[in-house]
Amino acid sequence: MNKKKHKQLENTLIISETSLREFTEQVFLTIGCTAAHAKLAADVLIAADLRGIDSHGTARLSGYVRLWQKGRLNPSPEIRIVHETPTTATVDGDRGLGLVVAPYAMEIAIKKAKDYGSGWVAVRNSNHFGIAGYHALLAVKQDMIGYAMTNASPLVTPTFSKERMLGTNPMCYAFPAGAYPPVVIDMATSAAANGKLEIAQRNGYSIPDGWVQTKDGTPSVNPHELKSGGALLPLGSDRAHGSHKGFGLSATVDILSAVLSGANYGPWAPPFVAYLEPHPQPVGEGLGHFLGALRADGFRPLDDFKQHMDNWIHRFKNAEPIDKNQPVIIPGEPERAATIERKANGIPVVKSVFDDLLKLANDLSLPSPNIA
Amino acid sequence: MNKKKHKQLENTLIISETSLREFTEQVFLTIGCTAAHAKLAADVLIAADLRGIDSHGTARLSGYVRLWQKGRLNPSPEIRIVHETPTTATVDGDRGLGLVVAPYAMEIAIKKAKDYGSGWVAVRNSNHFGIAGYHALLAVKQDMIGYAMTNASPLVTPTFSKERMLGTNPMCYAFPAGAYPPVVIDMATSAAANGKLEIAQRNGYSIPDGWVQTKDGTPSVNPHELKSGGALLPLGSDRAHGSHKGFGLSATVDILSAVLSGANYGPWAPPFVAYLEPHPQPVGEGLGHFLGALRADGFRPLDDFKQHMDNWIHRFKNAEPIDKNQPVIIPGEPERAATIERKANGIPVVKSVFDDLLKLANDLSLPSPNIA
Repeated sequence: MNKKKHKQLENTLIISETSLREFTEQVFLTIGCTAAHAKLAADVLIAADLRGIDSHGTARLSGYVRLWQKGRLNPSPEIRIVHETPTTATVDGDRGLGLVVAPYAMEIAIKKAKDYGSGWVAVRNSNHFGIAGYHALLAVKQDMIGYAMTNASPLVTPTFSKERMLGTNPMCYAFPAGAYPPVVIDMATSAAANGKLEIAQRNGYSIPDGWVQTKDGTPSVNPHELKSGGALLPLGSDRAHGSHKGFGLSATVDILSAVLSGANYGPWAPPFVAYLEPHPQPVGEGLGHFLGALRADGFRPLDDFKQHMDNWIHRFKNAEPIDKNQPVIIPGEPERAATIERKANGIPVVKSVFDDLLKLANDLSLPSPNIA
Repeated sequence: MNKKKHKQLENTLIISETSLREFTEQVFLTIGCTAAHAKLAADVLIAADLRGIDSHGTARLSGYVRLWQKGRLNPSPEIRIVHETPTTATVDGDRGLGLVVAPYAMEIAIKKAKDYGSGWVAVRNSNHFGIAGYHALLAVKQDMIGYAMTNASPLVTPTFSKERMLGTNPMCYAFPAGAYPPVVIDMATSAAANGKLEIAQRNGYSIPDGWVQTKDGTPSVNPHELKSGGALLPLGSDRAHGSHKGFGLSATVDILSAVLSGANYGPWAPPFVAYLEPHPQPVGEGLGHFLGALRADGFRPLDDFKQHMDNWIHRFKNAEPIDKNQPVIIPGEPERAATIERKANGIPVVKSVFDDLLKLANDLSLPSPNIA
């Protein structure tokens, strides 16, 4: 995206990475995070903004602050291992920021993988962890395959139901490559993520059939349907197109993240928004995550693996396209391209998010982020 | 399904589990498998028939024999570990039956999980392994979470492409429960499995939009489209409904099963049908699988885990249905119900498959299976 294009987006302001990062860090410091935690939490949110996953970056910053104001987020958690084998562990996040708890858990997984070939850490008593890709990529930096998933506020219905039972429950698999950048599959297990509904809401568009249903379970194309008690649909959208598979994937994320760790699962998962109260009779503690690291050289020499990853990427990039102007996209490519562009030209922030940041600056008596 | 219903299916014959199992075992013995391997291979195929996954049971038996006739399947493989860490291994299947190689690999994963909490085995130089669920359930029997996936003959196109680059690449996650049966998510990562096209072909139906496209990449509802060079679509069907996610899941299976193990990946994956030749310039050896076992008690006490699994299942079974006559289906429930019914009343085999078995009996000079 070039500067000209930016100017065409009337409701968007450009903020430099540095300015947005400094502001975000200051916010976390102000609510009581340690310097190290504030820096890490800001890094996770800015990574989302850089990667073009705008719904999971600083757009959520005020949400974390509101959870803290409600006393549902501990800014100075004592994160600790509560159960362990050589390659597995459960971590209690002590109601901390998932942005901090998840990287802590991933470092444990990486350490175990270094010693034994693989490491798997389930997390309970945490909060929203930002983008799954950030955590999975920590393993990739060590030439490991990274896994990251989390459960989330219930918005998605199982096939045949009209009840919101599951979050958009993302799963991420990240693979190191050689000359090519890593392959990063980072996906909500719903047909569409909530962020896509928000874009349609802002622009006044209707949405494709198969993303949401009404509170009675009728198909809908209204992007505001969730406000009327409707639900997001699992990947696959309907039974004929495999929504039972999307439900199965979402269930996998829920079970690994929360049933295994002792967090709240399914409809008990605590809401991210502070104006909704958590379930009065929880079945566990906080939100859950699941992180994993698998050494590539636990299976074949690292150079062999990387060479074949490059060959895999090269071959798939060159798969015969339907339209010559739209080649096959390797998972992770668009996010990488966005990062390069946004590091150079700044991060586009929509007006409503910027206003939210200004309000936050005012509330916390902080200087507001600079427009580029 | 009761007897009366069976009789209504004109093109279907009922064969007892015992008779079908004995016949299948005899076939594997005749092509040169050891008694133990023949018994195991038959068990995997009969499990598919019992679970109602008819496309992966004895319907495929003649396919394995034809691969053997072509010299592409070694009936007496020396399966061995070629690379190893405490919790990872790569197994060379020596061109054996995937039906035998995959359980061997899973036993290694289980052993490692017993010792270290988890175990992960990539397999190369193998063949079609039947249903993923069989292998994942071996771990569940040990109170572990089971993973099983495999790559397969290229029939599926990535988003934006018209080229067949991936198999229907199934992934299975299986979770032990307490009073309830295990949760078994066993799914092709394409919008529809090939078996569903075959049913429409037999019945002369058209198929839903979003399952296949023509060789030019145009949407199609023709169940015979693959014979004209068309392709299956990834889960999600099109970009707006998340086909890039289905592509990402299929890519994950391909990379874990084949790039990690040293098998053939993507368009190089060898075809199951013997009349198609493998790629003349392979990038690896045979087909690949990926098996995993994760100890549930590596994260929390086993009784706690099982109690919460039961609560998860109970809550999801009772999620408010759209139609009171169609409650939410827990993954694995239909397969379990089919097994109970078919163990009692016999296995329905369609006429064309039965004819294929009769031909096999004749070719190999074996007594044919008895109709119940």
